[in-house]
Order: sequence, then C-alpha cells, then structure tokens
Amino acid sequence: MTMPTATFRSINPQTATAFGPEFVESSKEEVEKKILAAHAIRREFADLEPKRRAALLREIADAIESRREKLVAIAPLETGLPVARITSEVTRTVVQIRAFATMVETGIHYNATIDLPDPDFQPAPRPDIRKFNQSLGVVAIFAASNFPLAFSVMGGDSASALAAGCPVIVKAHPSHPQTSEIVFQAVQSALRSLGLPGEIFSIAHGQNPELTHWLATADHVTAIGFTGSGLVGKLLVKLASERKVPIPVFAEMGSLNPVFITTNAITERASAIAKGAAESVLMGSGQFCTKPGLFFIPSDSTGDVFIAEFTIQLSQSQAAPLLNPGIRDRYKKSMAELESAPVISVLHGLPGSDTGLSVQPAVIVVNAEEFARMPQLSEEHFGPTSVIVRASVASYSAIAASIEGQLTTTIHAGADEQDDLSKLISELAQISGRVIWNGFPTGVAVTAAMNHGGPWPASSTNTTSVGIDATYRFLRPVSYQGFPDAYLPPALQASNPWKIERVTNGVRG
Amino acid sequence: MTMPTATFRSINPQTATAFGPEFVESSKEEVEKKILAAHAIRREFADLEPKRRAALLREIADAIESRREKLVAIAPLETGLPVARITSEVTRTVVQIRAFATMVETGIHYNATIDLPDPDFQPAPRPDIRKFNQSLGVVAIFAASNFPLAFSVMGGDSASALAAGCPVIVKAHPSHPQTSEIVFQAVQSALRSLGLPGEIFSIAHGQNPELTHWLATADHVTAIGFTGSGLVGKLLVKLASERKVPIPVFAEMGSLNPVFITTNAITERASAIAKGAAESVLMGSGQFCTKPGLFFIPSDSTGDVFIAEFTIQLSQSQAAPLLNPGIRDRYKKSMAELESAPVISVLHGLPGSDTGLSVQPAVIVVNAEEFARMPQLSEEHFGPTSVIVRASVASYSAIAASIEGQLTTTIHAGADEQDDLSKLISELAQISGRVIWNGFPTGVAVTAAMNHGGPWPASSTNTTSVGIDATYRFLRPVSYQGFPDAYLPPALQASNPWKIERVTNGVRG
Repeated sequence: MTMPTATFRSINPQTATAFGPEFVESSKEEVEKKILAAHAIRREFADLEPKRRAALLREIADAIESRREKLVAIAPLETGLPVARITSEVTRTVVQIRAFATMVETGIHYNATIDLPDPDFQPAPRPDIRKFNQSLGVVAIFAASNFPLAFSVMGGDSASALAAGCPVIVKAHPSHPQTSEIVFQAVQSALRSLGLPGEIFSIAHGQNPELTHWLATADHVTAIGFTGSGLVGKLLVKLASERKVPIPVFAEMGSLNPVFITTNAITERASAIAKGAAESVLMGSGQFCTKPGLFFIPSDSTGDVFIAEFTIQLSQSQAAPLLNPGIRDRYKKSMAELESAPVISVLHGLPGSDTGLSVQPAVIVVNAEEFARMPQLSEEHFGPTSVIVRASVASYSAIAASIEGQLTTTIHAGADEQDDLSKLISELAQISGRVIWNGFPTGVAVTAAMNHGGPWPASSTNTTSVGIDATYRFLRPVSYQGFPDAYLPPALQASNPWKIERVTNGVRG
Repeated sequence: MTMPTATFRSINPQTATAFGPEFVESSKEEVEKKILAAHAIRREFADLEPKRRAALLREIADAIESRREKLVAIAPLETGLPVARITSEVTRTVVQIRAFATMVETGIHYNATIDLPDPDFQPAPRPDIRKFNQSLGVVAIFAASNFPLAFSVMGGDSASALAAGCPVIVKAHPSHPQTSEIVFQAVQSALRSLGLPGEIFSIAHGQNPELTHWLATADHVTAIGFTGSGLVGKLLVKLASERKVPIPVFAEMGSLNPVFITTNAITERASAIAKGAAESVLMGSGQFCTKPGLFFIPSDSTGDVFIAEFTIQLSQSQAAPLLNPGIRDRYKKSMAELESAPVISVLHGLPGSDTGLSVQPAVIVVNAEEFARMPQLSEEHFGPTSVIVRASVASYSAIAASIEGQLTTTIHAGADEQDDLSKLISELAQISGRVIWNGFPTGVAVTAAMNHGGPWPASSTNTTSVGIDATYRFLRPVSYQGFPDAYLPPALQASNPWKIERVTNGVRG
C-alpha cells in the first residue's frame, strides 16, 4: 500500500487563502538520505581552502541578490510583511553572508595556535603542539517564520555553519515555502558555479511536526542551529539531550526585551520615546524576537505623560496581518485572556481591516503590584502587543534582578540624568545579552560586536546566532602533537599555505 | 534531636588504613550558605581589574609553591602516588596558574570588540556597539582523585574559573582531604594578602553522594567544571539539564585513547615503542584519563615482536596501589571479568606486594574479531591495564571510524613509512580532541595549543579544561549599544583604562 503523499501550499496572510504551487512533505527516508549524503562529503567541504569557501559565500550572496526581484515579489505575499521590509531584509541577508566571507578569508575562526617544542618547559619538556578549530560535520538549521530571509534558509544560522565548513540541512519554514525554494535554488546555483557538491546544502519542506524529530535525532547531525520560539527551542534541547550521542543545540528563543524609562528621559523627550517605542513594538506586526514586550515607566506624573503620548502613537497604528494562522490564533487567545484580567487599562490601535490574518494592536497597562501578581504578563506574546508597567524608578534595579534571562534590555535616560543608573545597568548586563542605551532593541546590526543570545530561557547556550562570532558554534578544537609537517592540516603547516592569522608561541601574526 | 555529624579520614593506599584528622562532612545548609556568599560578591570579583586578578593568581601560585614541602609530605600518603610525581604535579599546578595570570593581563579573554557608529552601514545606519565577555557567576568545580593538585582544589578547572572572574566552590575529592585543605588554605591566604573576600573561593568536603546533587542543583551555581569519570560526568550533565534554569556542564571524562602502531614503526623501533607504551599505561598506576587503554598492532609477525617486547617491559613492572578502595574494587572486578572471557592471552606484571590497595598490572591481547565481539573491551578500565588488539594495518582507518569519541588518539609510524596514513589521521582527528604522532597521550603540556577535551562521550562540550582556552568556558558575551562612555564597563571605554587587547572596527590593537 502506498501512503498518499501529503502536500501543502503558501497562505497569503492578507487574505488567509492558499496560493501557489503544492509543496510535497519531505519523508523520513528523504531526510535521512540527504543527511547521509551531506555526511559523506563533510570532509571534502571541511578541508576547502578558506579562499574557496569565502568565494562560495560571496557567490551565494550574489545569487540571492540576483533573485531580489523574485523575492520581493513573493515574500510579502507569503508573510504579509511590507515590500520595504523584504527589500531591506534581502540586503541584510547578503550583507551578513559577505561578512562571513570576509572573516573566513582571514582564517581567524580557525584559532590556529602553534607552540613550538620547548626543552625548558616545566614540569617537563614540551613537544611541538598545534591546535586549530575543525568543522563539526552536518548541521541542521531550523528556519524562522518571522525573518523569511535573514533567519530562514540562508540566514545567519546557515551562513555561519557554511562559514565553519559544515554541510547544512535546513528545515524550511512552511509559512514561506516559495521564498525558501528560491533561496535554496540560489545556493544550489552558487555551489554549481564553484563546482562543489550540491549535497553541501539541502532542504526539507513540511508542516509535519515529525520532521523536527527526524532532523534532531538523525545519527549524522552534529549540531542544531535555531533562532525562533521558546517552545520549539526547548523541544530541540530535549531531543538532542536524549540522543545516544548528545549534540549541542544553539537555540536563541523568545524574549520580553524589557525597556526601563527614567523620569528625566520622559521629561526631556516623552513624544520621541513614545514614537520610537510604538514603532519598535509594531515593527513586523510585533513578530520580532527583540520586540520590546515590557516597558517600565515611572508611577509619577511623567508616567501619565508617556502613556498619553503612547496612546496617540497607538491610535494611529493600523491592524496588520500576522505570519500564519497559528500565530494569529495564539495572539487572539492570549490577548482575550489578558484583556479579561483585572488590569488597569488596554490601549488599542485602529481596528482597520479585519480580513485575513490581521489583528489589532493592543497594549496593556498595569502597576507594579499587578505585574508581580500576574505571571502571564512575563510571557512573550508574539504580535503587535506589549505591557507597560508603572513602577517607581528607585525600584527598577530590584525589578531587573527579578527578571529571567532576556535577549536584550534597554534603558532610556535623560541627558541630564539625576539618578545613578550604575546598579540598574549592572543588573541588566547580568540578565541579558545586549543592553541598549536610549534606543530600541529591534533592528539588529549584523556586526562583529553584536550579540544576540542571552541567558536562559532567552537562549540555550552562551553564544550568538547574529554576527560573525556565530561561526564558532560549529567548530571544535583539535590538537596535533609532534606531527611531521606533511601530515599536518594546511592551517597548521610551517609555511602557512592558507596565509591565515595564527598565534605562534604567543605571538599573533 | 541533633543528627550525629558524619566524619571521614584519609586512607593510605599503601596500607589501606585510615590516618590523620577527622574531616566533617559538609551539610546541605553549609553548602548553600557558601554558594549564597559567593553569589553575593560575584560582581565585585567579576569587576576586578585584570592586573589585580592576575596578581591574585600569582599570589595563589606562590602560596601553593611555599607549601610544596607540606604537600610533598602528605599527598603521596593520601594517594599512593610517588613523591617524584607529586613534586612534578606541584610544579605543573603553579605553572598553569601563572599561565592563566599572564593571559588575564593581556585581557584577550574579554574578546573586547568595538564597532563605531557607521551611518553608511547596510541595510540601516549602525549605532555604536561594543561587546565583551562577562563572568558567568559562581562556578562549582568537582575535584579529580587522580590529579591531587593539577586537577583538584586549585587545578586547571578552578584556575580557569578564577581567571574568568567567577567565584569558585570546589567539591574536594574525599580521597585526599588533607592535600585539599592545604591548597584551600593557600588560596585563602592569597585572597587575604590581596584584601579580597574569602567568599571568592570555598570548599566542601565529604563522601556523601548527595553533595554532588546539592552543588549541581543550587540556584546560584551558573556552571560546572569537572575533569574525571564518565559516570560522574554524565550524572552532572543530567542534573544540570533538569534544573529550572539549565547550566552548562564542562565535563571531560574518561577515554580509551587508542594507539595505532604501523608495521614500519615496529620494524624500526619495537623496543622503544614497547617501553614508552608500558610506561604510559602504568604511569600513576594507570589512573590517567589520557592513559592508552587500547593499542592496535599488526596481525603479522611484527605484532609478535611488539608483544614480546611489551611482555619484557611488563614483566619488570611492579604492583602499585590505586587511589582509593572504590577504584581498587572496580579494577579487580573488571579484570576478573575480562580475564575469564575467551581472550587469547593476558600479560601480567610482577605480583609484588599485595598489601593495601595495590594491584598487579595486566594487559589483555585479542584479535580484531574478538575485539569487535566484546563491547566490554571498549570501556575504560581505570588502573594498570590496557588492551592490545591485533589487526591488519590496512583496516586501521575503518576501525578508527567505528570508535566513539576520545580525548586522544595516537599513531606510531616509521621514519620511512610505506603506508599512506592520511585517511587514518583524518579519521582520528574526527573522533578525538588531540592526535599524537610517535608519542604517548599521558603527560599533557599545559600550553595555549593544548586541547584536552574530545567528542562525546569523552567530553560533554567542545571545549578544553587544560590550557588557557579553558577560561572561555566561564564567560559569556554581552553587547552595549549606544552607551555613554562613563556608563560603559572599563573594558569597553574609549580610553581603554585596563590597556587590554581589543578589536576596533576590525583592527586589533
């Protein structure tokens, strides 16, 4: 008996209707075959000269860039995100791939370290020891729904795994299969241009939840990269820890990204902060993992001023579609629950069109006591909502100390700030991976100094999926002791044939 | 009703008798109090200027050095290890602490990275972003029995945690409480000399297995360092993963450290290899995590030559005491099981004195088929034993590919080697953390290029507990975005007040 082949199609969030081609659900056998094929060529890919790996990354960036028009035509239809956002995200995606290419060329990620023999070393003479970072092997990447390019098929997680020399199998997000397939084909065309095996990069499509299990438990998968929800992230951590050979899961999950606003900040620029805050909450229909989901504002009269300004901003905001029916349903359910709770008030945006997957922005305002009493306010709510808590500025650092791990935290202070914020800043650095001053957490610049991950439950490890340091997640050190030069990997040979950055006897060069 | 206080004493492995002062088992309340006190001063310690932290490490090294006589008097009595070994281990311990001091001064471990604002950055202008590594908080270290100094109270794990700016609580190994207490007092005197709080470094004594649970599940413990057995390592991983807030466990566990010897190597220098092999197996009564527990030698006549030479070496070896009754009992049990199995032969050392915890060296010889059939030969056996497997040299790389993760692997080849060993070397680099050429895995040089950890089950993470890179295990990156200089941590301030190594806009300086 042949099982019927399951298929699915894109859904347009503006209309909640299916469109475009049928996508066939990947079967367990197909997934296993792709992983096995990727495993078979892992050494060939790992041993690739840095220049060629950098060339591959640049070729991939170019191939995506050359499909910009197609992507800008299809991705907004699959995600409900505006054209301008997709345009910007294509740019971010290619910029970040090229940043990895530049790093790969320097070879700094190999952390090549050479200690020459030392007969006087204590307590015993030291042999020749050379260490460098090696690729882990096949990496499974789980694409995010909310960044259909920058954290999807060839987003930051995939780019960093390829930079590390690991073959990648991506679980495409079923909310944007057409966008996913265009990007996948771009990567395949780049591999062909460089004469490299297509098995380096494969894709699995599907809505079947089993797909996640197959990938996370497959024998030859050596690490998992995921930037998305806490629910899926925690499932991946559990599946990976139960394997016969556990593997690392680099999951960067949801976060409330609390923002603390001082009295002076509001006195100086209430309107500008309220405008920035509302924009940050509503950007991408509130579907950013760095969305500010929690504002602490003074309980005094400046807090009233801020709420008045914020209400003006919100009252001009439109209802907008969410990414998929699941996100829409969860948003509606949690907002109904929150709105029925005894909170002081709910600020609403414009109802706008109620078609498709559109929902109305709604922001909850509570006081500190209610916030402490209602644990559901400390949960992430994906969508155009946030919670404003009125508290005394003097209590901010104690509140910060009681908050669980976050991707980001933010302070808005006055130019002529009266309060000493050192204690608050210190607490925020302890609970988050990025602390922002007089800014907003959305809009993550992909740069060397950027850190995206934060303490549990914001992330599963102390690493970052954004920025070039993401590469180190997929590497492990191996030392070679007393080896003849000819048998050493090129990264460690005396002549430094790859011309990479190395440290020899403590001296970088 | 007051519970009777449990106590325990050192046991001399030479005589299997208790001696010295009574040690009181730490209670759960004491452990919690120490962790809470360490947590309370964690920021003070984390914020310490690198120069002062380096000075502390050097003061600790000096304080241990100044107790060398006491340590050399007591540690051999508690461990059964020879005086020369303890003398050398004191040296290794202070050398490695000083290596961490040198690294701390450069500040390289902060990985301070500064990206200045860039209005032309794509897809959006970039704000000022600065990142550096921050201390995790209180670290629990579980001391090893087999390195009473170098991986005990102030061994590599503790030194790297202090270098990272983390307060440490050590679970002392109950096999050497007196040695542990001398080292603990050395650290305390160094803290006093520098006017630093004693809470930075605390110790828990006990044989009670609950002690491990209390430490691994305590709220304010943020990471665990352990270099020891697979049994304890896997327990720690499990306990840490079940916490409400999971924490990283850096466990470097047992290993078989397989050695592959070619025909040419034996033809050229059978006697020298056999001598080195026997010394490496018997060093410290075979109680090294890097002990070669598995030798692959040719099935041809050169294999006979090697066994003859190895038999001569072994026949001159003495019975020697094991570290504690538990290790002795497990050794006797597993050897009795192995010797009763249908193996081709067992080579024995001299029976010697049967007093105390002494056991006789015994090496098992099997062929490749028997090895494949007997999974118990692929388990680590702590003590003066090893397994020699006769196989065809042509099959070595296939055998290597079938072996699970190891701390080390070793090749002995001829100067005029006939076989191409590239494939074997590539396989060994994939299953281990250090590959050794014409040497032996015991005797780990503590140097920048050294790597100790290996793939699961040799280690729980892709990190090393030996060498200065161990520091990175106890740090996590935090970014500061758009901050005024005065509120930035010193590591990121414009004037670089700590004079540490930083990378600004991609340029190191």
